[in-house]
This record gives sequence, structure tokens and C-alpha cells, in this order.
Amino acid sequence: MYTRPLANLIEQLQRLPGVGAKTAQRLALHIIKRPAEEIEALAQSLVQAKQQVGNCSICGHLSAEPICEICAHPNRDHTVICVVSDSRDLIALEKTREYRGKYHVLGGLISPMDGITPDHLNIQGLVRRVSGGKVAEVIMAIAPSVEGETTTLYVGGLLKPFTKVTRIAFGIPMGGDLEYADEVTLAKAIEGRRELSF
Amino acid sequence: MYTRPLANLIEQLQRLPGVGAKTAQRLALHIIKRPAEEIEALAQSLVQAKQQVGNCSICGHLSAEPICEICAHPNRDHTVICVVSDSRDLIALEKTREYRGKYHVLGGLISPMDGITPDHLNIQGLVRRVSGGKVAEVIMAIAPSVEGETTTLYVGGLLKPFTKVTRIAFGIPMGGDLEYADEVTLAKAIEGRRELSF
Repeated sequence: MYTRPLANLIEQLQRLPGVGAKTAQRLALHIIKRPAEEIEALAQSLVQAKQQVGNCSICGHLSAEPICEICAHPNRDHTVICVVSDSRDLIALEKTREYRGKYHVLGGLISPMDGITPDHLNIQGLVRRVSGGKVAEVIMAIAPSVEGETTTLYVGGLLKPFTKVTRIAFGIPMGGDLEYADEVTLAKAIEGRRELSF
Repeated sequence: MYTRPLANLIEQLQRLPGVGAKTAQRLALHIIKRPAEEIEALAQSLVQAKQQVGNCSICGHLSAEPICEICAHPNRDHTVICVVSDSRDLIALEKTREYRGKYHVLGGLISPMDGITPDHLNIQGLVRRVSGGKVAEVIMAIAPSVEGETTTLYVGGLLKPFTKVTRIAFGIPMGGDLEYADEVTLAKAIEGRRELSF
């Protein structure tokens, strides 16, 4: 229905996750109304991000440099490593500004159903980092799905001979209502109870 | 938080309509995982759509050629012109496969509040097309907002000396419930009633 270059753009945009036919059409019609410089800047940022962004050779976080900013940072505690599934989770943790240790990004979760075995993940590198004996604690920060639990237990088991392995707390979210929490979360919240300190 | 080229891409994506911080992040992380060819194809389709797509010199519809496919089509009835606000509405009408006449795309609606006066719209071209005397009917197909009504009445008034001017029907949508229709729509539906034909 649309003229060829526009139909082509709509088709390309539809390949993006969460972008259906209507959204792609709306985006394309918006895009061709914008100034040419703006479109070229967007196109260039796409290509450059793909060309320049790789994975940190130490932790696996997305980085334009061989070693990411967090691994290269001199003031972060290198005796603690927080293990996450992907860079998005790392960013979420960074936003809390609570954690000052290092990270390790696995690049996914173990999922035999989807053909993802431990060999597909950045686990070897983590064992290498921890087996040196200079890491005092590894915090597993992986969401508790079936794949998440499998990954936490598998990776935790590999690291246990070398260091203390902990995991983040699960329970009622702040501002959450007990009434609306599911049973598993409530059970986790009771199991993870701590003594009140006055 | 993200490495520069990635942060730059996220920033660029956030300028798109309906794309917030979270969506931009999700899209960017998806994009850099795709093969380089795919990203380049997307980038190229952006630039090409902007470079190649302009407006049809007759009707104002988006087109890569000076004259759009519909205006150039020999078998479409050129004695009927359907007036729409923008190309998206034209496409919506085309999808019905009901209409076999020509179109005219105004490129917006009259809206003095937003500084859009008739001079900003593709109205002169429409008057020129119709004043030749070869157009038997102009169908105003503009949604009934305040701006839509203003535009329909203004444009209709300009064309009336030269041709018959009609407008699309407003009423209860097919499958719609009378109970849930608003009063204005119901009033329009009663006003636009037609005799039953057996």
C-alpha cells in the first residue's frame, strides 16, 4: 500500500521486538517527517553501536572498550563479584548506587529446553576469576525462574570450593501488599525472615 | 550507565514517538545482538525512506515518484475525490477495497490554536483539481473532532461552487453496542438514519 522505500522501512521496523504493524507504520510516518540530519544521526548510531560495542573481556558487560568502565574502575571492591544474567540487570543494580563491588555477566540462563547449556554462557571466565582466591564473596543476583534457579545452583556449586557464595533476598517488594503476593513469594519472605534490630 | 555508543543509540531511539527510556533500552540491547547486515539494512532503510519519499504532486500522498500510484492508476475513477487528513487515513480507506476513486491528502487539520491555518495545508491544490469542473463528487473523510469539523466545513465551503460535496457517515461502529456509545455518536446515528430497503 505504501510507496516502496516507506514499505521497506515499515518492514524493517517490524522486526524489532514489541513493534507490530501499526507501531511500525506510526514510527515510519513520524521518521520521514523529521529533518534529514536527525534520521542520519539515528541511522549512524545504529551502525556505530553494532560496530563498537562488544563485551568486556573480564566481566562480559557490554562495552566499547576491551575492559569495561566498572572493571577498570580503581575504587570498586574487587573482592566481591555480583553475578547477573545480562547487562540490563547490571544496569538496574547500578542504578541503586548501593553496590560498590565488581560484576560478572553470564549472558543468559541455563535452559536445556532452549538448547542453552553452561558452555553457551560466560561461566568459564567467572570460575577463572574466582579460583585465583582473591574473591571473598560472590553474590548471585538472578531472578528466581526455573532457569534462574538452575543457573544459580549450577554456578554457585562451581564456585563454592573457592569463595563464599550468597544470593540476593526474595520477598515482598517494598510498597507491596501481603494480600496480593503469590504464595511462593510469601513463603520466601517467611523463610528469609530476619531478627528485628532495635 | 551504558557504554557511549550504546547510550547514544538509546538516546536516539528515545526520540521516537511512544518510545520511553525502558523501551529504548530494550530495543538497543536487542539491536546490538543482531547480525551486522541486519542493522545496516535497518539503518539504510531509514536514510533511504527519508531521501526518496516525498509527496505526490497531485494529491499530496506519500510517494517515491513525483506522481503517486493511485493518481497514476488508469482505472481509478478520477471524477470522485476523497479528502483525508493524512496518508495513514488514505491507507486505512484503501484497505477496505471499497473505494475506487482518487484521493487528496490535506496534510493535517485546520487548528488555529496550534497555529495551523488553511495556508499550511494542501488545500489550494484541491481547489485547483476540483475547479476544472471534471470532478463530480468530493467525499470529505475526516474524523469528527473540533479541528476535523472546522476543516470539513471550511474545505467543503470552498468546493461547493464547483461540485457535489459529501461526507462519510458517523454512527454506531459495526459490532458496537448502543448501550456503550456516547450521546454524540448516538445522536449522529439517529440523525443519519436511512430507510430500510427490502
